[in-house]
Amino acid sequence: MKSPEVAILLGSDSDFPFIEPGLEIFKKFDVSYKVLVHSAHRSPELVRNFVTKAREDGIKVLIGAAGGAAHLAGVLAAHTILPVIGIPIPTPELGGLDSLLSTVQMPSGIPVATVAVGKSGAVNAAVLAVQILALGNAALTKKLLDYKKELEEGVKAKNAKLEKSLK
Amino acid sequence: MKSPEVAILLGSDSDFPFIEPGLEIFKKFDVSYKVLVHSAHRSPELVRNFVTKAREDGIKVLIGAAGGAAHLAGVLAAHTILPVIGIPIPTPELGGLDSLLSTVQMPSGIPVATVAVGKSGAVNAAVLAVQILALGNAALTKKLLDYKKELEEGVKAKNAKLEKSLK
Amino acid sequence: MKSPEVAILLGSDSDFPFIEPGLEIFKKFDVSYKVLVHSAHRSPELVRNFVTKAREDGIKVLIGAAGGAAHLAGVLAAHTILPVIGIPIPTPELGGLDSLLSTVQMPSGIPVATVAVGKSGAVNAAVLAVQILALGNAALTKKLLDYKKELEEGVKAKNAKLEKSLK
Amino acid sequence: MKSPEVAILLGSDSDFPFIEPGLEIFKKFDVSYKVLVHSAHRSPELVRNFVTKAREDGIKVLIGAAGGAAHLAGVLAAHTILPVIGIPIPTPELGGLDSLLSTVQMPSGIPVATVAVGKSGAVNAAVLAVQILALGNAALTKKLLDYKKELEEGVKAKNAKLEKSLK
Amino acid sequence: MKSPEVAILLGSDSDFPFIEPGLEIFKKFDVSYKVLVHSAHRSPELVRNFVTKAREDGIKVLIGAAGGAAHLAGVLAAHTILPVIGIPIPTPELGGLDSLLSTVQMPSGIPVATVAVGKSGAVNAAVLAVQILALGNAALTKKLLDYKKELEEGVKAKNAKLEKSLK
Amino acid sequence: MKSPEVAILLGSDSDFPFIEPGLEIFKKFDVSYKVLVHSAHRSPELVRNFVTKAREDGIKVLIGAAGGAAHLAGVLAAHTILPVIGIPIPTPELGGLDSLLSTVQMPSGIPVATVAVGKSGAVNAAVLAVQILALGNAALTKKLLDYKKELEEGVKAKNAKLEKSLK
Amino acid sequence: MKSPEVAILLGSDSDFPFIEPGLEIFKKFDVSYKVLVHSAHRSPELVRNFVTKAREDGIKVLIGAAGGAAHLAGVLAAHTILPVIGIPIPTPELGGLDSLLSTVQMPSGIPVATVAVGKSGAVNAAVLAVQILALGNAALTKKLLDYKKELEEGVKAKNAKLEKSLK
Amino acid sequence: MKSPEVAILLGSDSDFPFIEPGLEIFKKFDVSYKVLVHSAHRSPELVRNFVTKAREDGIKVLIGAAGGAAHLAGVLAAHTILPVIGIPIPTPELGGLDSLLSTVQMPSGIPVATVAVGKSGAVNAAVLAVQILALGNAALTKKLLDYKKELEEGVKAKNAKLEKSLK
Repeated sequence: MKSPEVAILLGSDSDFPFIEPGLEIFKKFDVSYKVLVHSAHRSPELVRNFVTKAREDGIKVLIGAAGGAAHLAGVLAAHTILPVIGIPIPTPELGGLDSLLSTVQMPSGIPVATVAVGKSGAVNAAVLAVQILALGNAALTKKLLDYKKELEEGVKAKNAKLEKSLK
Repeated sequence: MKSPEVAILLGSDSDFPFIEPGLEIFKKFDVSYKVLVHSAHRSPELVRNFVTKAREDGIKVLIGAAGGAAHLAGVLAAHTILPVIGIPIPTPELGGLDSLLSTVQMPSGIPVATVAVGKSGAVNAAVLAVQILALGNAALTKKLLDYKKELEEGVKAKNAKLEKSLK
Repeated sequence: MKSPEVAILLGSDSDFPFIEPGLEIFKKFDVSYKVLVHSAHRSPELVRNFVTKAREDGIKVLIGAAGGAAHLAGVLAAHTILPVIGIPIPTPELGGLDSLLSTVQMPSGIPVATVAVGKSGAVNAAVLAVQILALGNAALTKKLLDYKKELEEGVKAKNAKLEKSLK
Repeated sequence: MKSPEVAILLGSDSDFPFIEPGLEIFKKFDVSYKVLVHSAHRSPELVRNFVTKAREDGIKVLIGAAGGAAHLAGVLAAHTILPVIGIPIPTPELGGLDSLLSTVQMPSGIPVATVAVGKSGAVNAAVLAVQILALGNAALTKKLLDYKKELEEGVKAKNAKLEKSLK
Repeated sequence: MKSPEVAILLGSDSDFPFIEPGLEIFKKFDVSYKVLVHSAHRSPELVRNFVTKAREDGIKVLIGAAGGAAHLAGVLAAHTILPVIGIPIPTPELGGLDSLLSTVQMPSGIPVATVAVGKSGAVNAAVLAVQILALGNAALTKKLLDYKKELEEGVKAKNAKLEKSLK
Repeated sequence: MKSPEVAILLGSDSDFPFIEPGLEIFKKFDVSYKVLVHSAHRSPELVRNFVTKAREDGIKVLIGAAGGAAHLAGVLAAHTILPVIGIPIPTPELGGLDSLLSTVQMPSGIPVATVAVGKSGAVNAAVLAVQILALGNAALTKKLLDYKKELEEGVKAKNAKLEKSLK
Repeated sequence: MKSPEVAILLGSDSDFPFIEPGLEIFKKFDVSYKVLVHSAHRSPELVRNFVTKAREDGIKVLIGAAGGAAHLAGVLAAHTILPVIGIPIPTPELGGLDSLLSTVQMPSGIPVATVAVGKSGAVNAAVLAVQILALGNAALTKKLLDYKKELEEGVKAKNAKLEKSLK
Repeated sequence: MKSPEVAILLGSDSDFPFIEPGLEIFKKFDVSYKVLVHSAHRSPELVRNFVTKAREDGIKVLIGAAGGAAHLAGVLAAHTILPVIGIPIPTPELGGLDSLLSTVQMPSGIPVATVAVGKSGAVNAAVLAVQILALGNAALTKKLLDYKKELEEGVKAKNAKLEKSLK
């Protein structure tokens, strides 16, 4: 069994539907990952125990997804030298502006690589993780080049479809 | 030497000028306090070591002051059952809206008692701490009643002064 | 009959569904409370009469929940030296940013301990009230320590469930 | 001595410079006014005593100017049936968005006639008060018609000056 | 037939549902009114023709309701010395923050008395208009005093109902 | 004397410094223009008289620059079928978000071509006007192509300078 | 077959429903157009190839519609001297404030003529394009004058209908 | 001469002071870098030429720093499979909220790893780049572990200094 290279921590199990599209990316690129519900606020020791061992466990990239006062990615970053990606989860009241600012506005020295609020962000967190892993990995590099072409082909196909529908 | 009842943790020493007016309140009410620079992001173990011993050290109220992705008060709250007060420190770019949302939008179960952004907030964090301590303390209760009268007298004095200046 | 230690005032009866999850906390911790619809704007004398007697009636913590130009908690704080907690109720148009800013941005000397917008805030207002009451109460302290463990156990259970579902 | 028709209440004496340009309007229109420092939070009884007698004292329009969690105008409106105008005072951190939302987002039944944040708002609070008083006052009506012409003449003069400077 | 004292102009007929609760107030107070769809942008001459004759037509208070770049109330204010009240209509994308800022941030000399975004604002625009008209009208004054009592009685009734439901 | 093709209207003479960099563009492209102080609120008839004659006066593009409740460009657009460009002028309190939303959020049928808040916006209003005029003008088209090259050369020069300074 | 004068580029096919009302305008004015799905991010070469040939292909006005980090209109503007209009598409999380700011806040020299967020913006992008094309086209000018009358007639009809319904 | 592993592109030379603190990080970690002024809007071909060759030139991480409608990092990401980090540069009018949203809200498939607005963001962009490079580099890993200790030591030193100053 392949040991996971990416770990995705969720502040709450209710965040799972938002990150699911990102898991599809990991499957597509055949990158091993694990998903954990590990709240920075309700279970700080779980988070700390996990993150302080993450590097020796072979994890290379950490992803934290949380909403509101979204501290999870920042707490991960505080405890590791691994790259940490933060996904701001939308909130019903403030749309996710709270999650975004809580995730991105980190102080000097402790970066969180923040992506867009919500599902697009989850996809992009995964793509970014793959891009990072691909730096030392020719197979992943090739897959990324293919993926980029697919994205362009997808646009062309939609363009053709729209053109047809407008005739 | 009196052991401190209140601990104020700052995310950065540059936050000190913002919380200084709050210290005046503690002096006025003769409430013992200590101030520490303990960043949640740059020194997570310092924060954790401090907060997990805080209750047995005799601390009754914790105050966290931080700006930007202001996680300090939330991290304190994650580790303690003591009341935690959060002071959002202003930021030059976003005015402190980031600090405010990062401090106040805590998930169910882990409250941070948030006060106003900046110096007014620091004063109020201290007054709130005194109000909490006064619940079991007749001397503090009396001082708070006096303080409330002083506030009103202060308004009356300013009113009189303005009235005079407008004549 | 136990006299209530906590009073929760609502600006409108339409705010009730938002604060209901907080009442569950009081029941769980066996903390006595009462809920009142007392608008700061439509019934200022009701509010004033209530709050000026609150301390002698044995109330220890006040909670004000209101939306929009949410002045209720601030008006309570103006009239008492008891700790006042403010719950910003969401608004359909501005999401609750109006309620949040109206509640939290109090001037020096008159704190309102503000929690998150909406239902999480209501739960946290209750937990915060329990934390305050627990300072002089060993039984509540023990319950809070248990509650904190429960929160962590809840995270662990959700984590296990997710892990299982992903297999 | 003429009894004042307009009362302007300030949350703090530091708000005075912001409302000063409005006083010039009252002088220009020869409308009697008084200015008071009466904080809704630090001196609620002062405010209540004043506003509950305002109508019988001959006051016709009330103006409340405050910043941050700006409750003053709302508290006035809660206690009177007189028209209440609210001036949101700018705040250094949030620019006055907090003051604006706290002033304008009043619940059904208790209006505050809100004007712009800061000095323009203070001028307009005064002009609005004059417009209200002018409904039953032919002399004021005439002065308002003249004032409107002056505003237009002022624009024309500035236009002529700019045109000249650009030649 | 009584000539109307209040005119309410709507930027669009789609704004009508938002202002309807305000019309109930006028009916309740027996204040005559008329409602017009008169867009400042699509029919500027309609607006101008109406507002420049409004005073001689016996109108005493003007209300403009519009959303987005909500210029209607400001355009009314530009052409009249009558008090102009602005109701910011909510917008699906920005919630009505655009409507609010477009309505309230008027330049010196041309006030718009702005009320809350949406239906509460419509009720309050009407109450404010009644308050203004009541300055020279003892019957309206009495009705306003009764209305204020009703509001308080309404709160008491809701409070009693809630108390009962919680038993 | 060449009749102007572009007219720039300012809500206030204090807006002039913000639009000055745009005038340099018109000079550079040898496009005739005039600048007027014509407030939509203080001098609505001036604005109306000007804009209703603008087309027959030979004006081809109108630019409105205003701050706060920035209605000027919208009022121009209401009265003309010429393209109208809006420059949101910054405001000290809200930074210009008010000006931007008041300018851009126009209703269906009455467009305002909105550019960035402040001086960049003024330059771009002018460039946009030139781009519009260039559609039927080969000389202007050539100048625009040259300008685009200049912009790129400017970047290259700054790049070279930075590269040198970093050695 | 008439070669199109206007090209509308969409960042995604999901943006199509938002721009559809704008296409009705082009049909009404008999202005030729084409719609393309050409993402600035997923298919940058498609966009570049299209825009660098646009002028020689006879296109006179370009419209870019995109949401979130809405770079499409800006990328178009970077590559052409044709007027570029930007339509900010609403986003579920932030309402479209992100799309608006990403579209409008362009740097000096590279204007994007930005219209309102969403469907009103799409209509106005089309009307603005027609206004630009009408500068050298008497037939379009006449149609625009008719359209302006229609808008006013539409308001009058709605006003009459409302008046009737209120009787 | 060592070929650079990181390239930092600036939208404007005026952005240089904001990114300078990040360069110190690269020097400290002995990571080779180059800085270029390459505007996405004024010099799109420069950007495209650079980024399409970046991977074969040996660059491993790209950083884009821009303000306002900050498209630079997004344009880089559109053309490469390398990890792209975005630094939102503050803007005088909107504080940098425009830059942040324009940088972070990228569509699915094209991530930009966004850091905080301004100088903290620049430091963190550099630390993040180092963290990414360290995944395949034991020497950098060791330096990062040392850096993390330094950050903690720095906090301890500031804490000691504050403690001393408060005595």
